[in-house]
Amino acid sequence: MAEGLKVLSAALPADVKLETAEYDLGARLYHRTGETLPDSVLEELKGADAILLGAIGDPSVPSGVLERGLLLKLRFAFDHHINLRPGKLFPGVKSPLAGDPQIDFVVVREGTEGPYVGNGGTLRTGTEQEVATEVSLNTAFGIERVVRDAYRRAAARPRKKLTLVHKNNVLVHAGHLWTRIFERVGREFPEVTTDYLHVDAATIFFVTQPERFDVIVTDNLFGDILTDLAAAVTGGIGLAASGNINPSGDFPSMFEPVHGSAPDIAGQGKADPTATVLSVAMLLEHLGFTAEAAQVEAAVAADLTERTGTRSTSEVGDALAARVSG
Amino acid sequence: MAEGLKVLSAALPADVKLETAEYDLGARLYHRTGETLPDSVLEELKGADAILLGAIGDPSVPSGVLERGLLLKLRFAFDHHINLRPGKLFPGVKSPLAGDPQIDFVVVREGTEGPYVGNGGTLRTGTEQEVATEVSLNTAFGIERVVRDAYRRAAARPRKKLTLVHKNNVLVHAGHLWTRIFERVGREFPEVTTDYLHVDAATIFFVTQPERFDVIVTDNLFGDILTDLAAAVTGGIGLAASGNINPSGDFPSMFEPVHGSAPDIAGQGKADPTATVLSVAMLLEHLGFTAEAAQVEAAVAADLTERTGTRSTSEVGDALAARVSG
Ligand SMILES: CC(C)[C@H](C(=O)O)[C@@H](O)C(=O)O
Ligand SMILES: CC(C)[C@H](C(=O)O)[C@@H](O)C(=O)O
Repeated sequence: MAEGLKVLSAALPADVKLETAEYDLGARLYHRTGETLPDSVLEELKGADAILLGAIGDPSVPSGVLERGLLLKLRFAFDHHINLRPGKLFPGVKSPLAGDPQIDFVVVREGTEGPYVGNGGTLRTGTEQEVATEVSLNTAFGIERVVRDAYRRAAARPRKKLTLVHKNNVLVHAGHLWTRIFERVGREFPEVTTDYLHVDAATIFFVTQPERFDVIVTDNLFGDILTDLAAAVTGGIGLAASGNINPSGDFPSMFEPVHGSAPDIAGQGKADPTATVLSVAMLLEHLGFTAEAAQVEAAVAADLTERTGTRSTSEVGDALAARVSG
Repeated sequence: MAEGLKVLSAALPADVKLETAEYDLGARLYHRTGETLPDSVLEELKGADAILLGAIGDPSVPSGVLERGLLLKLRFAFDHHINLRPGKLFPGVKSPLAGDPQIDFVVVREGTEGPYVGNGGTLRTGTEQEVATEVSLNTAFGIERVVRDAYRRAAARPRKKLTLVHKNNVLVHAGHLWTRIFERVGREFPEVTTDYLHVDAATIFFVTQPERFDVIVTDNLFGDILTDLAAAVTGGIGLAASGNINPSGDFPSMFEPVHGSAPDIAGQGKADPTATVLSVAMLLEHLGFTAEAAQVEAAVAADLTERTGTRSTSEVGDALAARVSG
């Protein structure tokens, strides 16, 4: 996080004053107070232009507590319906895939619906008759806005190609709703080439033919899975950035690395801050600092081609900040 | 399918008489009669020792009709709760992953619950207010039996390692039920090493460290996704076999290639029958013909190391049948 802020300061124009407020949430707050996201913090955050979120999660906290109580709470409270995740293999970065693939796509993941709504429960908990449900909720409203956003992004890219990923042969209700809306909105974008893949087939193409993708639009859960896979084939989640975007501007958008908190190496100065720095680039872009965003991305790209030996977290941050201001 | 039966006949001991009945289901039947699986066929199938299913699906049939009306109907009607899918990279087969990985794991996918139950619907269909739901149903009964089966399989393998894959930090109700049962049943198998991965993280390891997996147990939908990815990293779905198993023997188990019907090349004699032949090996194993199953797998393994040029579907089938009888 410190490195991300370092690069952010370095990138902003001299006449722009950066005001930051830091909130120490996550496992530490939870252990101290039992809270994950105090209402007062949520209120204060509403006044921010953007949020940069450090990776959360710690084995000492039961699985789901911070995810649902902090990360997903923010995404839902601020209606971050566009979860934007580029899958880009930078020159000089080794992919685990053979044959030097060219990878440059972006996943537009729905962020406020689907199986993530937290609608479920258990019956006869702890007995042999226990039943647990999880309900995926999908609305025409929610699907249409993310699908239209994805078409716009596809239309603005050179290849103008949009792939819908779902599982409409099994999840027929939600899947056909996605498919119908995808086709209907597509009529507004005749210049965009479209196709459809089942999520299982999509994972195959991610490893055998990642070049085939330009923009992908998909459901919250499928997007979660596909973007980790995308990170893996583009050199690892140490490099994967994401934006939780509310295009209306009613609430601040939030930028975060895709990776987790890596508690095994936390605080040792070993973590690669690149994913956070690339998330800062997305933050800059979102706030209209397009040239500055490009500068940060270019700094990362240059840094990646010249990597040798191991550097500490702050050494990488310093190098990137220097490139940006230089 | 013809090649699968060819190899099956060749593999069976001389004193075993193979009786087969063929049902022409799928797109053809659907277009002729509007039916996908007539009740009379379902009744007759109950008398079979096992079912070998050809890949189904055709673009002329709306997505979901054959999947839900035929394939999933059979899986649910015959309570195929163990969906067994090996992920094995045979010598001589090229993986899309760099660095010649060693891959030899098996996915035990739950086959009768989760998001596949077909419990969902739409409200205000076709309007801007449409809502679609999909309900994932999970029972202690259903999870425990598949988890115990997976532990048994892990205990019988040299590495004795079992990984649970779910998404218990988001799908907390179903996920924690899986986790609790996984831990409880594990106490009966102290010799098995266990770990847990979120499904998104699992996809990363499938491409960066596939050697780490031995047996994986997972939910119906996650299993669907992971086994296509497993097929991709082990040389493609042209080689991926699967068994839909009901260990009780109350109903016939069903064996099928993981791949689809490839309507673009159907009937041209170009399709690789290897996945079907490997499914035949699983069928033989299931019916207690262990040596014969091993022979079929060995035939495939030998054939794969010696592949040169292109052969037709029946040439591959002939070669495998010859190896098995030879
Ligand atoms: C931590 C978890 C809740 C989160 C998600 O599932 O969305 C993460 O995996 C991600 O992709 O941002
Ligand atoms: C065809 C489809 C219903 C099926 C599934 O989703 O289970 C297939 O993808 C599979 O993996 O066997």
